Amino acid sequence: MTPNLSRYLPIMEWGSRYNRADLSGDLVAAVIVTIMLIPQSLAYALLAGLPPETGIYASIAPIVLYTVFGTSRALAVGPVAVVSLMTAAAVGEVAQAGTAGYAVAALTLAGLSGAMLLFLGIFRLGFLANFLSHPVIAGFITASGILIAVSQLRYIFGIDGGGHTLPEMLMSLGRNIDGLNIPTLILGAGATAFLFWVRKGLKPLLQKTGLPEGAVNILSKAGPVLAIAVTTAATAMFGLGERGVAIVGTVPQGLPPLTLPSFAPDLVGALLLPALLISIIGFVESISVAQTLAAKKRQRIDPDQELIGLGAANVGAALTGGFPVTGGFSRSVVNYDAGAQTQAAGAYTAAGLLVASLFLTPLIYFLPKATLAATIIVAVLSLVDLSILKRTWIYSKADFAAVFITIALTLGLGVEAGVSAGVAVSILIHLYRSSRPHMAVVGRVPGTEHFRNIDRHKVETQDDIISLRVDESLYFANARFLEDRIYDMVANQPAVRHVILMCPAVNEVDMSALESLEAINARLRDLNVSFHLSEVKGPVMDRLERSHFLSQLTGQVFLSQHLAVSTLSTSPHPHTSKGKGASHV
Amino acid sequence: MTPNLSRYLPIMEWGSRYNRADLSGDLVAAVIVTIMLIPQSLAYALLAGLPPETGIYASIAPIVLYTVFGTSRALAVGPVAVVSLMTAAAVGEVAQAGTAGYAVAALTLAGLSGAMLLFLGIFRLGFLANFLSHPVIAGFITASGILIAVSQLRYIFGIDGGGHTLPEMLMSLGRNIDGLNIPTLILGAGATAFLFWVRKGLKPLLQKTGLPEGAVNILSKAGPVLAIAVTTAATAMFGLGERGVAIVGTVPQGLPPLTLPSFAPDLVGALLLPALLISIIGFVESISVAQTLAAKKRQRIDPDQELIGLGAANVGAALTGGFPVTGGFSRSVVNYDAGAQTQAAGAYTAAGLLVASLFLTPLIYFLPKATLAATIIVAVLSLVDLSILKRTWIYSKADFAAVFITIALTLGLGVEAGVSAGVAVSILIHLYRSSRPHMAVVGRVPGTEHFRNIDRHKVETQDDIISLRVDESLYFANARFLEDRIYDMVANQPAVRHVILMCPAVNEVDMSALESLEAINARLRDLNVSFHLSEVKGPVMDRLERSHFLSQLTGQVFLSQHLAVSTLSTSPHPHTSKGKGASHV
Repeated sequence: MTPNLSRYLPIMEWGSRYNRADLSGDLVAAVIVTIMLIPQSLAYALLAGLPPETGIYASIAPIVLYTVFGTSRALAVGPVAVVSLMTAAAVGEVAQAGTAGYAVAALTLAGLSGAMLLFLGIFRLGFLANFLSHPVIAGFITASGILIAVSQLRYIFGIDGGGHTLPEMLMSLGRNIDGLNIPTLILGAGATAFLFWVRKGLKPLLQKTGLPEGAVNILSKAGPVLAIAVTTAATAMFGLGERGVAIVGTVPQGLPPLTLPSFAPDLVGALLLPALLISIIGFVESISVAQTLAAKKRQRIDPDQELIGLGAANVGAALTGGFPVTGGFSRSVVNYDAGAQTQAAGAYTAAGLLVASLFLTPLIYFLPKATLAATIIVAVLSLVDLSILKRTWIYSKADFAAVFITIALTLGLGVEAGVSAGVAVSILIHLYRSSRPHMAVVGRVPGTEHFRNIDRHKVETQDDIISLRVDESLYFANARFLEDRIYDMVANQPAVRHVILMCPAVNEVDMSALESLEAINARLRDLNVSFHLSEVKGPVMDRLERSHFLSQLTGQVFLSQHLAVSTLSTSPHPHTSKGKGASHV
Repeated sequence: MTPNLSRYLPIMEWGSRYNRADLSGDLVAAVIVTIMLIPQSLAYALLAGLPPETGIYASIAPIVLYTVFGTSRALAVGPVAVVSLMTAAAVGEVAQAGTAGYAVAALTLAGLSGAMLLFLGIFRLGFLANFLSHPVIAGFITASGILIAVSQLRYIFGIDGGGHTLPEMLMSLGRNIDGLNIPTLILGAGATAFLFWVRKGLKPLLQKTGLPEGAVNILSKAGPVLAIAVTTAATAMFGLGERGVAIVGTVPQGLPPLTLPSFAPDLVGALLLPALLISIIGFVESISVAQTLAAKKRQRIDPDQELIGLGAANVGAALTGGFPVTGGFSRSVVNYDAGAQTQAAGAYTAAGLLVASLFLTPLIYFLPKATLAATIIVAVLSLVDLSILKRTWIYSKADFAAVFITIALTLGLGVEAGVSAGVAVSILIHLYRSSRPHMAVVGRVPGTEHFRNIDRHKVETQDDIISLRVDESLYFANARFLEDRIYDMVANQPAVRHVILMCPAVNEVDMSALESLEAINARLRDLNVSFHLSEVKGPVMDRLERSHFLSQLTGQVFLSQHLAVSTLSTSPHPHTSKGKGASHV
């Protein structure tokens, strides 16, 4: 029980202090989450293009592994809508839905994603998730919600359909709408309407009956189970299966199978990028929920250990017939609200699902797929929030562009293109901004040792000295910009003999910027202008001393700009700039 | 002749002032460059996997178009080694060498690349080239040089071979080495040795003969032409073609053909990424040469207009049976040294090549491919410079990592993987650094209004106020880091009532950072801690005013940190920090 071991096994920390109060809170939460998770698991398996039982399998071993390795006390792990959609898109590229190859590809995707998450966690690379800007995530989740809802319409209508983009799905629905099955539509539309009503209207109604709060909580989460029970019973009694209502059919009864992902290079290669995107999106979604819930109780989440927890969960999914999983938003909130005290709530949920897997699957033989589609549609429409477009439009056109591109490409080209483009646009916009850093020509505030921007302050300058302050670290994206700026200034001020680069805000000079400084030095030397630096930070100076730059420098490195100007100054009568401050002189 | 038109047509500017002195300088340079360009054009066509005459075609229309649209007075445009290698790699993926489809794909690649360059130029996106850090470019060029040299060995040995990566090429050479052709090896090795000698030894020798400098210059560039003449004559005379020496054979005589690139969506889609990479690499290589040469005469290059010039050149290549072109390093230097005064030197070079294309092609029927391979090997080995590994290792491990990955992936996986990975690693390292911005807890320097880092200075602080200065713009990559830092500080200082974020170095707050500020504000509110800002820059404040943040803010926005602390201060006896400055108190 070394500190190092308990860092990687959070269960050793909380497990050793587990008490009765924790147990009772965790048990109540587990019952509620199990009731919620059974229909969700079946539905998200359907969304991922897999047999319904895989949804239950994907909720057992992964939850237990997260209990051991995860740091969030409230996170409920399992299949979630967006990741299931991404699974369908990725696996659909390499295998035909319904084949054995499809299931193996889904396992492989979970295994790859788990390995990547473990790798990122062990090497503490969780910061990578920060490269997804908040608006891009919001846009992606909204667009995915729309895609998912539309993808389920075919089950509500009882028709064939397909496609991984909005135009494909709509065209496919249009082509097949002739096959509309009326009994399916009645069941599906009825279940959808009922579930929407449950979201809004059931809890207040139950509270009026005077039932205890705990019972109200459990019952208000049982809407999907009730919808499943009623529509299954109706389908069985009225023989709707023979009237064209698609039913789940025989679902194997038993423990999750032991499975192995494929190691075929072609398959692994084709799934690498999707696995990476699923890992990132899954992690970002999960960590946001975990941090929000932890903050409410002043608990802390360790993002790198969370990567390990989610990685272990996905490896578990790959070995037990599942598909990629992550921490779900709505069910984690339910888990938290229901009083989950520790990760053990997850273990009890897994036990509940195991019972379901062993004994309850025959009961869902007549379950209409339309009911599962209804639970998905109602769940994902709560993710859709187009207001992000308006908010970013008002706040920042650059963020708006990133969101708009993400939403448009997700809907038009699919989830992978959408999220990739969103990341790329976020990064490009940032690089564009930092590639044009703020620079100011400075002069001395008369009577002081302070140097300020000549455009904003009334300051003294000299014809033979240019003092340029750069307000950003120098690196490859802005190195050329600095070169251009200095060459322009020197070309426009023929009397100049000295250029002083004032570096108080330069935290870094990378190799590209070093080469630019060398180029500036060499080019100014050809023009008989010396090049000086001032106010260089210690770590930057240490690094410059490891290069040949300082020995080639035509000028000096000064501790302060004041020292630089007084040392180099030859002109007894400095000019006063026409800064804004000068207008009233 | 509006100013706007002459911006896009630099020829209108320099053409109107063209004089006799320009003409004579340009003519001499054109003769030398033509002599140099004929063997290079043939050789790079071979490298690109195309018939030799396409190399000449790719040097005529593109040069003329660059003369009209380009801004560099010395740049010599045409096929270059690295871009030809990238062309071979890209086109080899979609078509079989030697087929009509291969030539069409090469045209299409040039057309796509031209369209992209024009797009970037018209929308003034030349700054994108800055995202390739100098060390990554150096590593990529070096690795490409090695790949190119190895790819040509099969022609020197007279054997079959292939592959786009170093292991593939070496394995292919190993498999086929049994077919070694001795006459080819003698010709190839002899030509290589001769050309290496020409590089080093010919010019001093010619100078000793007392020939005029101009003649020395022309003759010392004529080494490749001489090698071609001698080996071609030897092959013809001794019937080496029948003894297994691969020869160029019949080369069509005539004007460059008018051609159209393909618009087939599959082909265009497959070539999009390679075309982008070729555009970027070609532009970066070209602009570096152009800027270096322009600086020597204090001329200026307009990078966005250069994009238009190179874009037009590539569109020209696509329409006249060529393949992707750009400004070449060695031939531009030769052009400059030979006295080229204006872009017209290019037009005269094109005329020279047109003459070659019309009349000289029958002369190269017996030209051994081994000779062309020798000219390529000698040219590209001058690009190989592994010292970049040592220099970056000493200067910065991050830059070293980027270079090493670029070189390793270029050699091991090919040019596209190498340059993509280099760009990605450069950007990731930069984002990693800026995702952990420098932040300092600050306190007041006693007796002043200055606030400094408590770790470095002897300053006054108060238990109920935390003042945090952030030395970087706030954006998505560092927003979460700021949140974590503030939550940690508040958790460790229970008496705190106020958190003041000091923002003098914050040039930007993007939407993600705004959401983080909102989250910090809400979470501190739950803890009964108020959140304040100080020294917010004008443009940042303007933007914050467009959001709901300021109305939700539990604290205030202060003009200065001093004002903030004096307003919020309730403690009459501030503490003095244990900063480094305190040790001698």
